Order: sequence, then structure tokens, then C-alpha cells
Amino acid sequence: LCPMFPEYDVIVVGAGHAGCEAAAAAANMGSRVLLVTMNMQTIAQMSCNPAMGGIAKGQIVREIDAMGGYSGIVSDRSTIQFRMLNRSKGPAMWSPRTQNDRMLFAAVWREMLEQTPNVDFYQDMVKGLLVKDGRVEGVQTGLGHDIKAKAVVLTNGTFLNGVIHIGEKQFGGGRVAEKAATGITEQLVSLGFESDRLKTGTPPRIDGRSLDYSKMTEQKGDDEVVGFSYLPTPRVQPQAQRSCWITYTSPEVHEVLKTGFDRSPMYQGRIQGVGPRYCPSIEDKINRFAERERHQLFVEPEGWNTVEIYVNGFSTSLPESVQFEALRMVPGFENCRMFRPGYAIEYDYFPPTQLRYSLETKLIGNLFFAGQINGTTGYEEAACQGLMAGINAHRKATGQDPLILKRSEAYIGVLIDDLISKGTEEPYRMFTSRAEFRTLLRQDNADLRLTELSYRLGLASQERMDRVLDKKAGVEKVKTMTAELTLEPEEVNGFLEARDSAPLTQKQRVQQLLLRPGITFPDLFRQVPKVAAVFGGFSEETLEQADIQLKYDVYIQKERELVDRMSQMEDLPIPDNFNYDKVHALSAEARQKFGRIRPGTLGQASRISGVTPSDVQILMVYMGR
Amino acid sequence: LCPMFPEYDVIVVGAGHAGCEAAAAAANMGSRVLLVTMNMQTIAQMSCNPAMGGIAKGQIVREIDAMGGYSGIVSDRSTIQFRMLNRSKGPAMWSPRTQNDRMLFAAVWREMLEQTPNVDFYQDMVKGLLVKDGRVEGVQTGLGHDIKAKAVVLTNGTFLNGVIHIGEKQFGGGRVAEKAATGITEQLVSLGFESDRLKTGTPPRIDGRSLDYSKMTEQKGDDEVVGFSYLPTPRVQPQAQRSCWITYTSPEVHEVLKTGFDRSPMYQGRIQGVGPRYCPSIEDKINRFAERERHQLFVEPEGWNTVEIYVNGFSTSLPESVQFEALRMVPGFENCRMFRPGYAIEYDYFPPTQLRYSLETKLIGNLFFAGQINGTTGYEEAACQGLMAGINAHRKATGQDPLILKRSEAYIGVLIDDLISKGTEEPYRMFTSRAEFRTLLRQDNADLRLTELSYRLGLASQERMDRVLDKKAGVEKVKTMTAELTLEPEEVNGFLEARDSAPLTQKQRVQQLLLRPGITFPDLFRQVPKVAAVFGGFSEETLEQADIQLKYDVYIQKERELVDRMSQMEDLPIPDNFNYDKVHALSAEARQKFGRIRPGTLGQASRISGVTPSDVQILMVYMGR
Ligand SMILES: Cc1cc2nc3c(=O)[nH]c(=O)nc-3n(C[C@H](O)[C@H](O)[C@H](O)COP(=O)(O)OP(=O)(O)OC[C@H]3O[C@@H](n4cnc5c(N)ncnc54)[C@H](O)[C@@H]3O)c2cc1C
Ligand SMILES: Cc1cc2nc3c(=O)[nH]c(=O)nc-3n(C[C@H](O)[C@H](O)[C@H](O)COP(=O)(O)OP(=O)(O)OC[C@H]3O[C@@H](n4cnc5c(N)ncnc54)[C@H](O)[C@@H]3O)c2cc1C
Repeated sequence: LCPMFPEYDVIVVGAGHAGCEAAAAAANMGSRVLLVTMNMQTIAQMSCNPAMGGIAKGQIVREIDAMGGYSGIVSDRSTIQFRMLNRSKGPAMWSPRTQNDRMLFAAVWREMLEQTPNVDFYQDMVKGLLVKDGRVEGVQTGLGHDIKAKAVVLTNGTFLNGVIHIGEKQFGGGRVAEKAATGITEQLVSLGFESDRLKTGTPPRIDGRSLDYSKMTEQKGDDEVVGFSYLPTPRVQPQAQRSCWITYTSPEVHEVLKTGFDRSPMYQGRIQGVGPRYCPSIEDKINRFAERERHQLFVEPEGWNTVEIYVNGFSTSLPESVQFEALRMVPGFENCRMFRPGYAIEYDYFPPTQLRYSLETKLIGNLFFAGQINGTTGYEEAACQGLMAGINAHRKATGQDPLILKRSEAYIGVLIDDLISKGTEEPYRMFTSRAEFRTLLRQDNADLRLTELSYRLGLASQERMDRVLDKKAGVEKVKTMTAELTLEPEEVNGFLEARDSAPLTQKQRVQQLLLRPGITFPDLFRQVPKVAAVFGGFSEETLEQADIQLKYDVYIQKERELVDRMSQMEDLPIPDNFNYDKVHALSAEARQKFGRIRPGTLGQASRISGVTPSDVQILMVYMGR
Repeated sequence: LCPMFPEYDVIVVGAGHAGCEAAAAAANMGSRVLLVTMNMQTIAQMSCNPAMGGIAKGQIVREIDAMGGYSGIVSDRSTIQFRMLNRSKGPAMWSPRTQNDRMLFAAVWREMLEQTPNVDFYQDMVKGLLVKDGRVEGVQTGLGHDIKAKAVVLTNGTFLNGVIHIGEKQFGGGRVAEKAATGITEQLVSLGFESDRLKTGTPPRIDGRSLDYSKMTEQKGDDEVVGFSYLPTPRVQPQAQRSCWITYTSPEVHEVLKTGFDRSPMYQGRIQGVGPRYCPSIEDKINRFAERERHQLFVEPEGWNTVEIYVNGFSTSLPESVQFEALRMVPGFENCRMFRPGYAIEYDYFPPTQLRYSLETKLIGNLFFAGQINGTTGYEEAACQGLMAGINAHRKATGQDPLILKRSEAYIGVLIDDLISKGTEEPYRMFTSRAEFRTLLRQDNADLRLTELSYRLGLASQERMDRVLDKKAGVEKVKTMTAELTLEPEEVNGFLEARDSAPLTQKQRVQQLLLRPGITFPDLFRQVPKVAAVFGGFSEETLEQADIQLKYDVYIQKERELVDRMSQMEDLPIPDNFNYDKVHALSAEARQKFGRIRPGTLGQASRISGVTPSDVQILMVYMGR
């Protein structure tokens, strides 16, 4: 064997979002890691939009951060705009989102990885795995090296036999102007894996100097930049943020787009892969929602110092001249110039039902898959799988049990459970609606949920752990103090009036006041001198956390109980010969699937795709619960 | 024709050093420019070493800057280390050199281009030219667009049918992990162009964390950062600079390298292209200089925040494991880890004798070639050709005469004259020895030589012109004042003694003093209060310039006269039937070549490759001069 490489604990193939998190996690736990990637100049490249987080995805980034992953820190350090989406809804829906400087994002990732001891780098294409007796033992590279490792994590993204489509043109590539990766799919299939094709797409990029922003609506960043990381990472100054703009398509735009349908790779059947339902191309949108007269477009800058613009919502693989003509009819785009056209890409993925909950493959021991290769879409989805695969590759390499997050612990748990138990036939992305316990899985408490777990595994740092303990203690103390501190009517009625809330007639505890809708702790703190005096020593984050815990206590308790009941049920056996046909209350789909799959436990039954919570409750009743 | 693109004045193909300068120059002169490049994420990528300038090349960068090109500014803004090479020699040899942050260099270039009005960008591969009646009318792209322009500049670098070699492996590519460009060579050849193959190579990149710097010699940056640009561009703070290190190969290293010769693409004849004689691979060096026991290696950081290291002097295409084993025997590299192997690349070029002095091709009107495609090597060589091609493409598109720099005006003039008149059969790089008037062509006076010329053409800005006028006036004033100001022995003898220079016995003019070797104006200024008081209002640059002009006045005058004599001779006709065989004093090579080529004028004779200045002087004598 070639002496160029030592035997590694973990080899990670691919330096996208999944691969970077995997390498960092395994290395930080103590594994000696090699990160092999085709081009070291594209480490942590954002293939599509220059943004992180958003609804449900923002929660994932905070979870990654809480566990000691890097995506949150990298995003904070490269933010050009921050917004907390859904602020007007309950805190379970709050979702942080950053717009990022594309080049800076990649540069910071690379810098952080380089500063991680135990991560080695190597630029080469992995074209096969070394497999012996059903276990992976390393990788084989295009330059002909056999590199040994105890565990291997594949994170090939969209590169496996990638084919790019623009109108009637098609050519091989993993991203535009980058080569595709070959060999791995073929070998895995020969080993018994099942693979299939998916597709995704990206919109054209525009010269910002050619746009008329006066015809669009400006969307500024938040006044307060919360950010992702629970560590005190430097964040963008609120007033320094860059704006995005909003504009719309129109029936005329749609008409022009339709003129390209006869040359569309999708409608012509040249693309076989299934595309992301929830991040559809503009041609999909005007087809599926024929009744809609317009679709929203977000016009987003690609960085601090570039005029390149990303047209969010206009993903397309129509012929380039059609893309261009249609864009020119969009308000503000009358004189637009195109830097690069939108395109679609088709690639191989491996249906994730072939994995264990640890993300190890069932067929080949010590081989892990993470990211787009598992049929997901999105940076955050990829990154969190990378983190988990990195953790579990390290644990496998050191003979320890895997870490498996529950659906009630983290969106990450929901995502992996969905993938493993239900599989996916179209690119999977996260939504809040996929989580049944979303009151528990908030963006503000990912650290309280996950940091200790990760710390015990040796991943989250002492600093993180200390901060969590401080936050916990602070919140408890604040909660107790709110039960003790009372306010006289004259101390608070002015404030209450200003907030359209009924005035006090007699003194009341702060805790009681906080239960009122529209009254938040940070607000009270800022407006009422007595409150400010008493709670002066606590951070805004602590006050807000206490506020949420107090306000939503009832809901949180309810969900906790549900979790408990469900987890008791989880292992409740279903008799082998149970006759589902007799249970008429079940939906037809559930009856059929239960009959065919014959789940062994209620838990397993609940996770079958197409089965609704009410089907499960009906089953529960029949099982005598 | 596709409505996506307007008709451009100038289309530049390729965004390497040549293409970027060409686009900027043409646009700044008023042309509407389209820069088409295969990947907008690799604009101004440094393919090989992260450094600009150096001997003769530093002079070129300053010339580019003096004319209003961007390379100097970009280099200054991304400098991690500055050194003025050859400081101990005469000022004609002084050569500024920067070590650069690779990513920042590309980012700054892109930012400056984006901020240049009139430059549009488009990401696509140009696969052919639109040619009609012997004139180019635009380009055809891989996505199928015909884009029209009055002039086209090709700057394809190493991408035309590029083939990469590492040991016995070979694969297509324009740089590692980037696709090669196809189509253009084939079309040009079918139009009657001659093309050939050249090759170049790059060393492996190493993980700086794996090196032991205590075994190497540190090389710090200069205490004073002069930089390239004549504009007040921000420069790196001297104390912030990053160090490089020096180490050496050894007979053991050479022995290991030799074990790979039987698998070397060069020695096995798999590479046909000729490599750069003056930037040879390490295998070339140990072959050609078999008597040398060691070769110097410069260990250079790739940027501010990266651990990636460039091993300058170790360019190689030997099998990777041989590269690795050999490196491990180099002091300081005992435990080194490799990020990416060195490799060689073969590509098409077009012998530059097919060009006019304007860099327009002789065969196809309005088509210009610049950079590596002309058989040169090096960023600076490419950039200055790009600048000239950009200027001349603009002038052609607007019906004006080309700008042609003389050999006595600029290294750029020397370079283009060498290429056009002599051609090149191996990658051409610049040396001070190629310039016969190097006392005139100094790095300190590129602005005095070139800015006004460029300003008159509408390229160099008013700010540049004003600064040159100020500098000129200041220098004249200083020179006059040095003739007037006298110093008494007691005012200067302490200083003279400290500089080992004979003390004065009576008062002397400053001008006289400055003629002494070892006495410089800036030094005198700093050490002698009276001088400081009188010249306090002048910049260090002005004092230094006056100093150089005074000290080297005799040499400068001599060279000016030679230039005049030569330019008179330039057109001196040589009789058609002149019998060279009779002129025994001529070198055999000159006699033979003159006889074959039969130059029409003495100027033409002087530019034939292999002809020495003394051959020309002998001819002159025979012609009765
Ligand atoms: C055109 C396009 C459009 C997209 N649009 C969207 C969208 O609209 N919404 C959305 O949510 N997501 C979108 N995505 C998906 C998003 O980019 C991915 O989800 C995310 O980048 C996946 O991360 P990853 O780490 O799995 O893979 P990637 O980010 O693709 O990274 C894969 C890495 O592996 C390397 N690699 C691959 N094979 C090998 C090999 N054999 N040897 C060595 N290295 C290898 C590659 O060089 C790369 O560094 C899009 C992707 C593309 C390409
Ligand atoms: C491996 C390697 C090693 C080198 N080693 C040295 C060295 O040791 N010393 C030295 O002095 N120089 C070296 N060089 C050369 C140096 O990189 C070049 O001289 C310099 O980069 C040339 O600049 P350029 O602008 O001519 O071309 P490049 O910098 O090569 O740029 C060409 C550009 O054109 C684009 N392009 C090409 N074809 C097309 C097309 N058809 N359509 C659209 N875009 C296109 C490419 O994407 C690229 O952006 C090396 C180069 C390489 C690749």
C-alpha cells in the first residue's frame, strides 16, 4: 500500500456541506480524518442560493451549532443580511435565516477546517471503495491511491454521474464548469445497492448593475441580528446589512416561459430524475399552479462586494434565450444582463432506506452516507446529516454505539427518521410540519436540548457546555424571580396601556403579567424601570428564554406528555396475525400498507409513509390503550 | 441573431490575467466589452504560484500600472509579503515582487472588474469564432449563442485542448479539476493558422501544519513596502507581512526522484510540448544540472488564513508517490502531508509570428491573441499582452491606429517585439537580459515613461497623469535644489564617516555628494538635519527618483544616444544582394541566418533570433556607419 497516507480513522469523501461537517465532527471527537475532495478550491461551495437557514432549516442550523458543528459559525461570519422569519407567529415557528457572501462563506469554512487539528486534506476524485468481507476498508482515488480507513463517509452531493441540462443542451458535470464523479455508483450497485436519479435546478445569475430597484420592494435585514451560533461569534452590524428586493412574475412572463416548453428537458423527457416538489422550477410552478397570475421573486445579492445577483424563485432549465426573454418582462429586469443561465442537474442518489439510523449502510459495514446522496436537498439537510455521520463514523471506528437523535429531540432526528423509515422518492427537504413536537424543537432552545448530549460524547466544547449551564441557571433564576417580584399598578399601567393591554387594579406578579399576549419580557424590561433594575444582570437571551418557557409552559408540558406516551407505545408489539381489514376506521391507505408491511410495533407502524397520526391513534385504541 | 446580447465593441474570451487586463483596458477607453469565461468563479485565478513580479516581471507589473492596468493595484491589495529584489545592485535591476493571498487576489480582480462600467460578463465556453471575409465578427458559445463584436481578443491560456499529466496518468483539463476548452484550435487551423504544443508544470501543495520550519531559513518581507501601483493603493503593513522559508533538495532527494523517471510523462515521450527552460521542473533540473548537489526551494504560504503551502522550485509531473517520497527527504518536510500533487499540463499555442505588432492576427482581421496562447509563460507576461491587446482591440474597433511600444520604452515593447519578430519555440518569459536598454526601463520610472502616452489614448486616468506631472516637477525641483544647496564639512562628516565615505575638507554641493557610491538621498535626508529641513516637503519617492537620475545620469544619457542611433539605423536598408559570407567577423549562426532570411533593414536583421548585438554592430560597420 502507498506510504503517502497513514491509515485514517475516518475518510470523508466530498467537501460540500455534509462532508465538511462530517470531517469536523469526527476530528473534533478525536478521529484522524482525511477529507478527500475533487477540488480544494471549491470546499464548502454553495451550489445554489447564497443563504442559510429559513423555515425549519434555521432550526437545523442552530441544532448543528448546539452540537458543536461549524455551519452556524460560518454562516454568522459571512452574513450580509439576517432575518428571523415568522416573528409574528409563536416561537416554535421563529426561523433564523442569513443571506451570505458566497465567497466568504467558503473561505471561512476552509479556514475553520484548516484550523481543526486531525483533519488532513487531499485533492483527488474517489472512484471506488476498498471493501473486504462486507466491510469498507478505505477508498481508491483517480490518481490510483488506495487509502485505508476504519470508516468512510460518502458525501458526493450532486456529483455522481451528474448531467447538466439547459434547454436542449446537456453535458456531464457535478455543478456547472465542474466535472462529474464516476465509478462509485457503479461499484455500489454491483455490491447490491439500489440507486436512482433525482434532479434539482438553479436560477440564472444577473448583473445587479442592470436592474432597476426602484420598481421592486426593498427588504431590509432585521434591526437585531440574532444569528445562528450559541457562541459569541462576531455578527454583522445591523446597519451594515445589505438589502434584498422583491418583484413578481406576471402572465406575460409566464407566456414567454411557455414558448420554451417544447425545448424543455423536463417536458421532453430528457430528465428522468424527480425534482424537488417544494423548491420547484419556475416552469413547474406555472404548470402546477396554472391559476396563479404571478409568483414572487427574491432578488438577492451574492456578497458584500459583488454585483452578481441571485434570482430566488426563478430556478429553470428552459433554453437560455427563453430564460432571458422572460426575465426581461419582470419589473425591474427590463434591461437585465445575464451572467450565467439557470440549469437543472440530474444525479444518482441511494434511497436512504438502505441505511441504519446511524447513517451506516446496511449492506457494507463502516460505510456511511450523508447529504444529497441520500435523496435530500438543501445545505442544512446535508450539513446535519454530515454531522451525524461524522459522529457515528468516529464512534464506529472506536467501537462505540451510535448516537441516534429522537424525533422529540431535534429536527435532525425527524429528518433521519423520515429518511430511514419512509425513504424518499423526491428530493427531501425539511418543514416544520414534518415535526410532530415542534413546540419542543424551537430555534431558541437547541442548545438546551442538544449541547449536553454532544458534550458527553466529546464533541461540544467545554465553553459551549458552560454557556448552556449558565443559560439554564439564569433562566431558572429569572423564572423564580418573576414569581417573586410584584409590580404596582402605577409602575406598569402606562406600559400596559401603550401595549393595548388592560391596566392593573392591584399589584401583580411579573410572572402573571408575562402570560398576557403581546407582553414580552424584553419589552417589559426595556420599558419598566423597576423590572430593568431587578433583572439588569441578565442577558436578553436569558429573559427571552424565560419568557418563552413561562408563556408556553402549558403547551410544552402537553407535548412532553405526548412524547412520553408515544415512547411507551413505541415498543408496544402488534400481534403478528392482527387483522387490519376489520378496523374500518383506518384509512384505506393505512389498512393496505399495514397489511402488506405488517409492522412489529406501534412505533414502526407510525412511521410508515402515508400513515397519519389518527391511524395510529385508532390502532392504539384497538390495542387496548 | 439572439437578442440576449447587444453587439459589443470588444469580446474578450477567457478571464485569466491576459483576459482581465484586456477587458479592463478596452472598457476604460470606452468600448462596450463582454468578458466570456468558462467559470465566473475562477476569474483571475493564479494557476500556479501565488506571487506577482520578481526580476523583470516586477518591472512589467509597474508598466502595466503606469498605463492604467489593474494588475499592480490587485497585487498591492492582496499582498502578504513584499520584497524589492536586487536592492544591492543598480536601480535598473531592482525588481519588486509580492507574495499574494491567492483567494484575495482573485476576489479583488473580480471586484475591480465588476466596478468597471462597460464590462459585461458571461459564463460559457467559446467554441468558435464568427468569421466573414477574413474578418472576425464575434464568437459562438457552447450553449449555442452567436455574439457579435467589432473585435475579439482570445486569451485561452492553458485551456486549449489541455491535457494534464501526473506520472503515468493523463486526463483532459485546462487546470486540475477544470475542463479543457475545445473547438477553437481546430477552427483556427482550418482557417490557416499554425498551432503547436507547449507544456508547463506546477509543484505539489503541502499542509503547512506538517512542516518543521525550524529546519529552514526564514525569509521576511522588506521593512519598507514599496508595492507596484503608482496610485496611493493601500499596502500591507510591513510588520503584518507573512514570512517565506528556504530549504534545499539534496543528493538523496534527487535519487528518489530518479526512481520515477521511468514513469515520467516527459521521459517516456507522452508529453510532446516543450517546457519552460527557465522555470523547469525539478526532474529537468536534476537532469540538466547533474553536477549540482542541491536546488533551492522556497516554501511560500498561499494566503493570510490558509495553511496551504506552495513549494516553489519543485514543479514536477513525476508519479505522485515519488513526489511525496522525495519531498519527505527535504529538511523540514520529514512529516509533510500533501494537499495536491504537482502536475504538468500540455496545451495548444499559436506561434506568435502569426501576429502583427498590435497583437492582431495577420490572417483574420480584428482578431487579437494575448497571453499564454502566444507561447509565453507567466502572469505578468500574460497580463501585459492582455493590456496591449485590449488597447488595440478598442482602437481597431474605433478605426484608430494601434499603439506599439518600442523596445526602448518598455519591457512590454521588448516582449512583444521578441514574440512577433523572433517567435518562440519554448514558453517565453521575460528577463532583464532581453532588454538592451535596461538602464532606461527601470521599475521606478515606468510612470514617467508610459503614463502620459496612455493618458493621451484615454486610458490612464487624470489622477495618474496629475501624479506623474507632480512627480516630474518635484524631481526637477529637487535636482535644481541639490545643485544649489551646499553642506559644510561639520554638517555632514559624521554621516559620511558612518557610511565609510571620505570626509569633506571644504563645503560641497549636495548634488556632488550624491554621486558618491553608497550615499543615497533618502539616507542623507534621514541623517542630516539640514537636508531634512530643506527637502522636508518632498516625498521619499521624489528624492529617490532624483537620486537615481543624478547618479546614473551618464549611463542614462549614453543609452538614450544609443536608442537614437539605433532608431536611425532601424530603417537603414541592406542591399538585396549583400554577401554575408564575406563578413568573416559575423558569428556562424548570424551569417547563416542572414543569408537565409535576407533582412531588408538593419532593424530587421537585429531582431532575428540568435543574432547578437555585436553581429549587428559588425553589419553596421560594413554598411558604412
Ligand atoms: C444546480 C443546483 C441547484 C440546487 N438547487 C437547490 C435548491 O434550489 N434548493 C436546495 O435546497 N438545494 C439545492 N441544491 C442542493 C444543494 O446544493 C445541496 O443540497 C447541498 O449542496 C448538498 O450538500 P452535499 O454536501 O451533500 O453535496 P455538495 O454540496 O454537492 O458537495 C459534494 C462535494 O463532494 C465532492 N465530490 C463529489 N464526488 C466526489 C468524489 N468521487 N471524490 C472526491 N470528491 C467528490 C464535490 O467536489 C463536492 O465538494 C442545488 C444543487 C445544485 C448543484
Ligand atoms: C499547471 C500550471 C503551471 C504553471 N506554471 C507556471 C510557472 O511555473 N511559471 C510561470 O511563469 N507560469 C506558469 N504557468 C502559467 C501561468 O499560469 C500563465 O502564464 C498565466 O496564467 C496565463 O494567463 P492567461 O491569461 O494567458 O491564461 P489563464 O490564466 O490560463 O486563463 C485562461 C482563462 O480563459 C478561460 N478560457 C479558456 N478557454 C476558454 C473558452 N474557450 N471559452 C471561455 N473561456 C475560456 C479559462 O477559464 C481561464 O479563465 C502555469 C500554468 C499552469 C496551468
